[in-house]
Amino acid sequence: METSRSKQEWKKLEVAAGNGLLDRRGFLRGGAALAASMTGYTFVQSAFAEPVVDDTWSKEPGALVTAYGMPSQFERNVVRTLSNPKGEPRTQHARTPHHLINGTITPNGLHFVISHAGDPDIDPDKHRLIIHGLVKRPLMFTLDALARYPMVSRMTFVECGGNSAPFFSKEPIQASVQALHGLVSSAEWTGVRLSTLLEETGIDPKAKWLIAEGADAPALSRSVPLTKALDDAMIALYQNGERIMPGNGYPMRLLLPGWEGNMNVKWLRRIKLVDQPAMSYYEARTYAPILPGGKAYQFYFLQEVKSFITHPSPGMMLKEPGFYEISGIAYSGNGRISKVMVSADGGQSWAQAALQEPVHSKAFSRFRVPWRWEGGPAVLQSRAWDEAGNVQPTRAQIVAARGETTKVPPVTGFPSQHYNGITAWAIERTGEVKHVYA
Amino acid sequence: METSRSKQEWKKLEVAAGNGLLDRRGFLRGGAALAASMTGYTFVQSAFAEPVVDDTWSKEPGALVTAYGMPSQFERNVVRTLSNPKGEPRTQHARTPHHLINGTITPNGLHFVISHAGDPDIDPDKHRLIIHGLVKRPLMFTLDALARYPMVSRMTFVECGGNSAPFFSKEPIQASVQALHGLVSSAEWTGVRLSTLLEETGIDPKAKWLIAEGADAPALSRSVPLTKALDDAMIALYQNGERIMPGNGYPMRLLLPGWEGNMNVKWLRRIKLVDQPAMSYYEARTYAPILPGGKAYQFYFLQEVKSFITHPSPGMMLKEPGFYEISGIAYSGNGRISKVMVSADGGQSWAQAALQEPVHSKAFSRFRVPWRWEGGPAVLQSRAWDEAGNVQPTRAQIVAARGETTKVPPVTGFPSQHYNGITAWAIERTGEVKHVYA
Repeated sequence: METSRSKQEWKKLEVAAGNGLLDRRGFLRGGAALAASMTGYTFVQSAFAEPVVDDTWSKEPGALVTAYGMPSQFERNVVRTLSNPKGEPRTQHARTPHHLINGTITPNGLHFVISHAGDPDIDPDKHRLIIHGLVKRPLMFTLDALARYPMVSRMTFVECGGNSAPFFSKEPIQASVQALHGLVSSAEWTGVRLSTLLEETGIDPKAKWLIAEGADAPALSRSVPLTKALDDAMIALYQNGERIMPGNGYPMRLLLPGWEGNMNVKWLRRIKLVDQPAMSYYEARTYAPILPGGKAYQFYFLQEVKSFITHPSPGMMLKEPGFYEISGIAYSGNGRISKVMVSADGGQSWAQAALQEPVHSKAFSRFRVPWRWEGGPAVLQSRAWDEAGNVQPTRAQIVAARGETTKVPPVTGFPSQHYNGITAWAIERTGEVKHVYA
Repeated sequence: METSRSKQEWKKLEVAAGNGLLDRRGFLRGGAALAASMTGYTFVQSAFAEPVVDDTWSKEPGALVTAYGMPSQFERNVVRTLSNPKGEPRTQHARTPHHLINGTITPNGLHFVISHAGDPDIDPDKHRLIIHGLVKRPLMFTLDALARYPMVSRMTFVECGGNSAPFFSKEPIQASVQALHGLVSSAEWTGVRLSTLLEETGIDPKAKWLIAEGADAPALSRSVPLTKALDDAMIALYQNGERIMPGNGYPMRLLLPGWEGNMNVKWLRRIKLVDQPAMSYYEARTYAPILPGGKAYQFYFLQEVKSFITHPSPGMMLKEPGFYEISGIAYSGNGRISKVMVSADGGQSWAQAALQEPVHSKAFSRFRVPWRWEGGPAVLQSRAWDEAGNVQPTRAQIVAARGETTKVPPVTGFPSQHYNGITAWAIERTGEVKHVYA
């Protein structure tokens, strides 16, 4: 039961756009100075003046502290969804539950994984990284050797090119934000710049590309322009402080900030400098869908500016009218997010969301905006801009350029890659949240 | 075997201080433009030109991708050390292995824990937060209610007041950086500002303090000045994206950025506004040691500016002379770290370390400086400054003010709290790293 305040107090929160969107600045600053404009939330069960009553867990000693901490048993449903839980001989996807987490970091246990033949169980003492091909002297690196090189840390999202593929469907697929957008995650990665190692090997002037190869059974390989290698590419060794998870490339992966996930080769064992791309399986087939005009959409590396609302999102239920915080994530392979606008009326009017500072380049930004749901229909959308001036397109713009499908994507041969259009969630009068095209 | 380059090439790296410390700017920028000054690391096993040979794990499908990812089996020793692994009826400590992780984030599984009666197994649907006492209307909040309030995220370290207590010992204790400094960790915390909730309850002008109480069996309680509550205090609900770990206060804790860990009350169930402190157990006894002059060192909240080197650190072994990166963490309860200086000659000369950008306020900063170990004795030290102008003291300054002990701290009645002095690691000719006072 909401103990609501008078309408007069509610009005102190400045309206920023239609259908109840409020000014983001209401809660950017803390402290009592804002008290006058901040009152009027109050979602308490009841006013309280009784002594505290001990719950069961307050009456006896608790559980043993363990050497490696794990989430509470009550969080057992906060897990990745698996596309192939029995590990049949095909690709396995594990999707991040964006609707159940918060902040800007994906915890390591919940980072998305795509594994084409399971996660290899690599002995780090035996693993080697070889850099050869068009170099002045080919070199082989152990983990011990890499540990002595200068390191860098950076927050970076990694996103599968096929993330959000369901949005190419002609009809909006009813599914959670985890099912729709769960193939993107963000973490702090620490490792050695690839440019540092290439300065060790030297570069033959004929080299224009590199082929990165993994130590998984398919020896997944992708071609990467040398310019990226010399820009911000990293041989990543740590993920959110600890060694990279097995599913994310233990003991090392290529990290290409802002570029298609599949190119960030996991279980990296080899980098060969070459004068032209390899035309490997993933770049010639999976990540080369045919455009409406008949051309292949190939060597399209960048994950472009994108955002989506995680709270509220499909599968959730708003129990009653009143205040809610609309919150989501935004990111761009081009750099920092500069602005996120949010609409509650299907795009008729927009309010600027607050961005959690500091805003990292090529990493998740959390955006938030306060909203007063009056109990009527509403359509929530977010739209992001990046510092390079790019704006997130509408779905109509994307499908005009790349097509749509009546199949449930991703299906080879149908458009399924690099969807970064606007996402819309409808709030029904019942409080149910539904996926809509708007 | 190190394939070393000519002395001439090594000399291209500018020396910044005595005993081999090199200029941090050598690897702050990436790219080929720096090639001339960057050459000369090379810690490869051997030059390589053979075809890649498949390891066992490259010849067969790998392991099943799981719903919640865990570190590789080869990382089984990267765990917290436990002071009371059988859970006997006394305090349990779990220390962060700073020498085995990297970057600026402590992963949730390795965040330090101190638990005085085990970790309560709290059902979040039954848990309540009550705010009462000198307020205008007492309120009770469910987790569902809190989820609707405006949230914020921030990187924050939490440090036990007793972290680094062994440095009060008259003789340097030979132990790892985990044993010596393992009671501090840093994470991204997301939750509701306490000031937002206090604007809901209103504040009686007589209120000057609050008493925060946990739902653990001892109902741990601490007094907090109201000024901190209205500044940056948070009711934290998420830790590095996921719900707070059981040992860190699931489902909610009080977060007081930069203040003594014990005050960041875990399993928070009650906040009572009062006009004077409670003189609770932990503030009247454990965290009130006697100073040499006879006065109690009480209500000393701030965790002051501090740094220590994690790589290399005691227990490690430098296998051969050559290049190494010296790396560590720095933090201050007063705000951002402004500078870290590193010495390799026991404090005779100092070089400025590179700080990983962005530098967060009241959170870990990773500092790094390149070093060429010539094979002789060396003493490595780091010293941090914060943006408020505070500088990390020497050990001599700390023990002059607060005393030292021949017991192995922490021992009640002996100095054991808030050590933030300089730490020194000696590199012996054998390459062994030892703890020394210098």
